[in-house]
Amino acid sequence: MAVNLNLAPAYPVSGVKLVTLAAGIKANGTPDMVVAGLAEGSTCAGVFTKSAFCAAPVTICRAHLVSSEGRIRALLTNSGNANAGTGEPGLTMAQGHCDALADALSIPADSVLPFSTGVIGQLLPNEVMQSGIARAAGLLSEVRADSGKGTLNGEVSATGSSSGSNADDATGSSASLDAWQSAALGIMTTDTQPKLTSQRVEVAGKLVTITGMAKGAGMIQPDMATMLSYIFTDAAIVQEDLERALREAVDVSFNAITVDSDTSTNDACVLVATGAGPVSISSANESDWPVFMQALVRVCSDLAQAIIRDAEGATKFISVHVTGGAETAECKQVAYAIANSPLVKTAMFASDANVGRLLMAIGKAGVTDLDASKVSVSLGDVLAFEAAGIAGGYTEEKGAAVMARDEIDVFVDLARGNATATVYTSDLSHDYVSINADYRS
Amino acid sequence: MAVNLNLAPAYPVSGVKLVTLAAGIKANGTPDMVVAGLAEGSTCAGVFTKSAFCAAPVTICRAHLVSSEGRIRALLTNSGNANAGTGEPGLTMAQGHCDALADALSIPADSVLPFSTGVIGQLLPNEVMQSGIARAAGLLSEVRADSGKGTLNGEVSATGSSSGSNADDATGSSASLDAWQSAALGIMTTDTQPKLTSQRVEVAGKLVTITGMAKGAGMIQPDMATMLSYIFTDAAIVQEDLERALREAVDVSFNAITVDSDTSTNDACVLVATGAGPVSISSANESDWPVFMQALVRVCSDLAQAIIRDAEGATKFISVHVTGGAETAECKQVAYAIANSPLVKTAMFASDANVGRLLMAIGKAGVTDLDASKVSVSLGDVLAFEAAGIAGGYTEEKGAAVMARDEIDVFVDLARGNATATVYTSDLSHDYVSINADYRS
Repeated sequence: MAVNLNLAPAYPVSGVKLVTLAAGIKANGTPDMVVAGLAEGSTCAGVFTKSAFCAAPVTICRAHLVSSEGRIRALLTNSGNANAGTGEPGLTMAQGHCDALADALSIPADSVLPFSTGVIGQLLPNEVMQSGIARAAGLLSEVRADSGKGTLNGEVSATGSSSGSNADDATGSSASLDAWQSAALGIMTTDTQPKLTSQRVEVAGKLVTITGMAKGAGMIQPDMATMLSYIFTDAAIVQEDLERALREAVDVSFNAITVDSDTSTNDACVLVATGAGPVSISSANESDWPVFMQALVRVCSDLAQAIIRDAEGATKFISVHVTGGAETAECKQVAYAIANSPLVKTAMFASDANVGRLLMAIGKAGVTDLDASKVSVSLGDVLAFEAAGIAGGYTEEKGAAVMARDEIDVFVDLARGNATATVYTSDLSHDYVSINADYRS
Repeated sequence: MAVNLNLAPAYPVSGVKLVTLAAGIKANGTPDMVVAGLAEGSTCAGVFTKSAFCAAPVTICRAHLVSSEGRIRALLTNSGNANAGTGEPGLTMAQGHCDALADALSIPADSVLPFSTGVIGQLLPNEVMQSGIARAAGLLSEVRADSGKGTLNGEVSATGSSSGSNADDATGSSASLDAWQSAALGIMTTDTQPKLTSQRVEVAGKLVTITGMAKGAGMIQPDMATMLSYIFTDAAIVQEDLERALREAVDVSFNAITVDSDTSTNDACVLVATGAGPVSISSANESDWPVFMQALVRVCSDLAQAIIRDAEGATKFISVHVTGGAETAECKQVAYAIANSPLVKTAMFASDANVGRLLMAIGKAGVTDLDASKVSVSLGDVLAFEAAGIAGGYTEEKGAAVMARDEIDVFVDLARGNATATVYTSDLSHDYVSINADYRS
């Protein structure tokens, strides 16, 4: 049951071909493999988990981005198995999958980036993967041959529009859009809804499309990236600018959410610029760059917040805004202490205006020399706490009225500086426990 | 439903008188006030929460321990309201309660330590507290008058034996022991069972008694102390030694447990030496001191583990042992990352041998330059993970057999040094969510 998950509509991106299929990794026969073919000349930047136990595909992604200098031609994703904690055999297998797809598509092996999501600590079924990759490569070739009409066994494939001139083709061909929606479905694990959205902006009189997809929905406190997110633009952007753009956008979006404080072994977020559209964008251009960045941040923020709206067991979407910090880091510290507190999250689930638990979380956040007598706390527009005591005029009824909403804003003012941070989170419900106690059984 | 909560039997401590009553702070009429009267000459050491939002009674405890130089004569505890987040009014009120008890008992005001536990952010009902204190003082006087036989309206009061000679009176008078059990009940909030235990050791040919009580059961990741714990000994110990003893014992007991990663505003742990028994103990005595310390650590560890066994919603008692660290701090970091992970805790609740989630938690713990290929993980005596992959011979069945137990040991070897740490925790169950979603309603 996602909380108000309404993303802006999605548009295909020129230079991206997608195929999605049920390779047989997931036992229930739902789609579990997505391959994105990228136009020649595409650039790609990526950010990945900081986990010391990062998964085999993350290791290979990092190496391929370096050796290919970002000249990536295909993204190979499987869901249902994370290929993490699998040692040398897992690494060898992931490399083999990249090689197989590269062979079939006649592209360099290091132009393939692999991604896996699902259960940790089990080897992938290698034959299932290899046969899936062979089928995906065949489907991709068909898309190339007949311009997005290729479908097989109910599987969906399509190109984005390969012409830069139809910028006002607002929905794309339905076949194309279907392919994007199928891909967003194919990367899901415990997500209840696909997360796919676009922003289109005019740069130099021409339309640039940015389309992103992401999956959640647990083990989410990204540390440089989220579980899996792919963002594509038809603009041409050099590698250095692309890396900068991704870092800046991720910092205020995927790096500002938490479901359960747990950081995945497989977090990965990549930004692809196909250059198949009519526009080139450079950070040196002071008018174009901010327009592009604003749209990119919007796509990333909407996807990051969509992950929280569809978090495991979520019944509330909670925004924790911390202001008045001496520096951003301490604002994030306080915001995460609140957002990750099981006692705050269970109170949110109960719609309980439990200001005391907010104070507890601020108190334990470890901000050096915090003057508790200056801190104020508001629930929505209701001032609840100030001057070390319950605010004059605050009543349980006023607090309860805010807490009854399914979107709750918590404001904390540390009153010791001008830094701010916002973190988005979900509540802790019975369904969270059920989902995670039952996940592998 | 506590997990195997079987504490060693408790004995009264000479020089301690206890009264427990239902003052009317808790709406349901159960006991909510405990006063301990301490013999003249008692010394007292305390450790308290590091929360920036520490409660009014914590502030006063700290001040009174300093100004009285540890010469404490009474501990005044209320449950049902934490007197935290209550600003100046809360502080004034707590000071007034100390003054009232001190007046009634004709002792210095700064020889009273106040403790509160319960809901945060609401003022205590002052008249209820004052009338409770008056009644408690009267009951304490009766105990003094008739040696532990005083009971009133079903309320229980008693002294410990005031003679040091009956060291083999193993159970104490039943009236006395009743008073200790009532006090352990009186400080409870969401605990399902009282936590009271003793150790008796022979020092210089004479018996020393150490008796402690504690309460949990949520908002538990103590940071220098736990919610509330009182430990009493009849030995005479100078203030400086008492402080050292408490710090050392707390570090391996209360500072090694977590229910939910949330640190209370009211954590307090005090150690009282009444000197009413026949023995004096000094850290300068190299044979006596270790005997006393071993018994004290045992009392603290048993109480700390009892808090976990009775943690909110607990169905499992989990010990996380981390070895091979470069330093103790990084071992604790890894142990807490595992013990606080909602995904590990829900897997434990499900008896799911989810080794992947353990790797995830180790990976996110933030240990600098951790070589994941050297880390090994065992469930009980079953080696599950080594050399960056699932251990040879490991099977889901072997893991599942360990996870089916209600006491689970997780062993992590970082293989980069000789430091170790152990942290005790509980699982994350539906009952945890229910208890904390319903607590105030």
